[in-house]
Amino acid sequence: MSANSTDDYAARSIEAHKKYGGKVAIQSKMPLDTPDDLSIAYTPGVAQPCLEIAENREKAYDYTSKQNTVAVVSDGSAVLGLGNIGPEASLPVMEGKAILFKKFAGVDAVPIVLATQDTEEIVQTVKMIAPGFGGINLEDISAPRCFEIERRLKQELDIPVMHDDQHGTAVVTLAGMFNAVKVTGRTFSDLNIVINGAGAAGIAIIYLLREIGVRQIVMCDSHGIIHSERGDLTPVKQEVAELTNKNNLKGGLKDAIKGADVFIGVSVPGVLKADMVRTMSENPVIFAMANPVPEIMPAEATQAGARIIATGRSDFPNQINNVLAFPGIFRGLLDARYSKLTNKMYIAAARAIAKTVKEPNVDKIIPGPFEPGVAEAVAEAVRSCSGE
Amino acid sequence: MSANSTDDYAARSIEAHKKYGGKVAIQSKMPLDTPDDLSIAYTPGVAQPCLEIAENREKAYDYTSKQNTVAVVSDGSAVLGLGNIGPEASLPVMEGKAILFKKFAGVDAVPIVLATQDTEEIVQTVKMIAPGFGGINLEDISAPRCFEIERRLKQELDIPVMHDDQHGTAVVTLAGMFNAVKVTGRTFSDLNIVINGAGAAGIAIIYLLREIGVRQIVMCDSHGIIHSERGDLTPVKQEVAELTNKNNLKGGLKDAIKGADVFIGVSVPGVLKADMVRTMSENPVIFAMANPVPEIMPAEATQAGARIIATGRSDFPNQINNVLAFPGIFRGLLDARYSKLTNKMYIAAARAIAKTVKEPNVDKIIPGPFEPGVAEAVAEAVRSCSGE
Repeated sequence: MSANSTDDYAARSIEAHKKYGGKVAIQSKMPLDTPDDLSIAYTPGVAQPCLEIAENREKAYDYTSKQNTVAVVSDGSAVLGLGNIGPEASLPVMEGKAILFKKFAGVDAVPIVLATQDTEEIVQTVKMIAPGFGGINLEDISAPRCFEIERRLKQELDIPVMHDDQHGTAVVTLAGMFNAVKVTGRTFSDLNIVINGAGAAGIAIIYLLREIGVRQIVMCDSHGIIHSERGDLTPVKQEVAELTNKNNLKGGLKDAIKGADVFIGVSVPGVLKADMVRTMSENPVIFAMANPVPEIMPAEATQAGARIIATGRSDFPNQINNVLAFPGIFRGLLDARYSKLTNKMYIAAARAIAKTVKEPNVDKIIPGPFEPGVAEAVAEAVRSCSGE
Repeated sequence: MSANSTDDYAARSIEAHKKYGGKVAIQSKMPLDTPDDLSIAYTPGVAQPCLEIAENREKAYDYTSKQNTVAVVSDGSAVLGLGNIGPEASLPVMEGKAILFKKFAGVDAVPIVLATQDTEEIVQTVKMIAPGFGGINLEDISAPRCFEIERRLKQELDIPVMHDDQHGTAVVTLAGMFNAVKVTGRTFSDLNIVINGAGAAGIAIIYLLREIGVRQIVMCDSHGIIHSERGDLTPVKQEVAELTNKNNLKGGLKDAIKGADVFIGVSVPGVLKADMVRTMSENPVIFAMANPVPEIMPAEATQAGARIIATGRSDFPNQINNVLAFPGIFRGLLDARYSKLTNKMYIAAARAIAKTVKEPNVDKIIPGPFEPGVAEAVAEAVRSCSGE
């Protein structure tokens, strides 16, 4: 992706957004062409589904679009690589998510952008609008507020809630890891992993890796290795210090990376140097997911000895793209009418994505976003979990 | 509409709601079939419209679906004639409104039902979700909270807000009145009107009638004529007492109706008796809009001397149906990007609806809901008003 082609996408994107007038429209699922249709879809007939739902709230799933509709909720505080651009400016991204939901899994997703970045107000607002939705996809909300907001909503709502920047990224990363481990002949229990970037995605990746048996993880933030003696840790990073870095390493990324099998970057462009890669174990695996410019460019990493390299970009092999996860996850949740999302579901989803690659190899540890069957495989994996 | 046919609609409505799985779906306005499409609608291209909106919030109208989307917001407290059935149970009605918006005016409407009936929480929630919408249609919120909620939101938001139960009904009633006055050879300034029912619609009707020059209005609630000496008046009814009943009438509907030219019922079935109609002026006009059973049945009213009778029902002539107003009103507002809705717009809309009836007569003072061109005429009337 040269600067030119990015400019080209920018100009063509503006043109398309103007031409189509945004990306999301409402469509009627019921005919409405005659007075009789009106009497069925609206008054007087509509009173009957209303009355039955009033008696039994669960029937909203049978008679309304709640059964297939999720809200894509953002406060515009951490949008793509653009940062805190506010609710209106985040709308094009949320509308994009909405049409991806529809395209890949037939899920109806409604963009809801919020005129607040206050944790309590966000929680309250989502709770207030929840009755009409079958699920909540939180999106592009900055850390550390995103952790608290998701935790509260999971506790207080009876519909599934997922912050995609955390768990969508974690699921697809884990999917890639399943095949990377297989291709390089490693096992999760012996793996030594460095995660660079302590934002929403990095933290969620730690939880999933631990759940599948990874024991050696070190996380770095912009101040270096996270360890329990640092005085500058937020509550979330204090938890990271407890869960990771068993050998109590100190120093910077340079120190952490020595002998590591895997580098997972959810941070900023260019921070992983070729010299660092050379200090990793043999045949190291590198997930450099900063966007649009990764922590290290694939050619440079390969030259320094990397065996597998994955990025967030579509113009290199092994693109870690959330679209592989979120549509199928919510498809499965809605189909099964689960009220909670669990780590088991995330791991099942990751395994399902990994399995869609028939013969994994260094250039293909993950399916491409348009490969058929991925969302359905993920949905089936989620449906097959119990709802607890 | 016999009891049987209502039962039939009920059963068929249940069947249809199950079969279609609710009424509202999301549709993509932009193609999404290739990796190139994805780069335009989503990353990396989408960053450009985001950045331009971040610089100038107004551009959200150019690049996003905000330009054509309204929220249909309800707390489920006053749904149809069913009363306070709660948010989930109100969804079938809100989804019905949404598909009517689309069918009649191409407006994309998103049902939002709220897990609260607290005035302050409703106001806050709507303010929080407003950035993604081009307008707010409040729906089926009970009086007197609906007045305060609408007033606050109109003040505090920069997009138009309309409580349809108030103003939609008032606009269509006024449209019918324009033609009823014409057909019976009356003038608004000499008209003597009794309104029965002091809920959302009745109050809104008072304001529009006063605005077009009606000077003699008496309103009754369930306790009788509203006059300033009553000790049981809410703030809104105190205002009614100040604006109406210049002769300071006291007593019940029976007393108010004597000599009146027009009866407007937004109340309960059967309260207008044939004997009362006989005491009205010659050729009286009766709008009996209680649903599904009107304040007086058309045959009885006609026999008692009524010259024109309108109801809320589709199986009698002169159906006062909000669908004649709200789709076109929001179409016009969105097209013109007006930030406020004014009484002038309501009156212009009412006039436009009345004018679509080429030759008004006692059986046809208002167009039917499926007559073509009504929403477009209303939209044009609203666009032609200034935005102030």
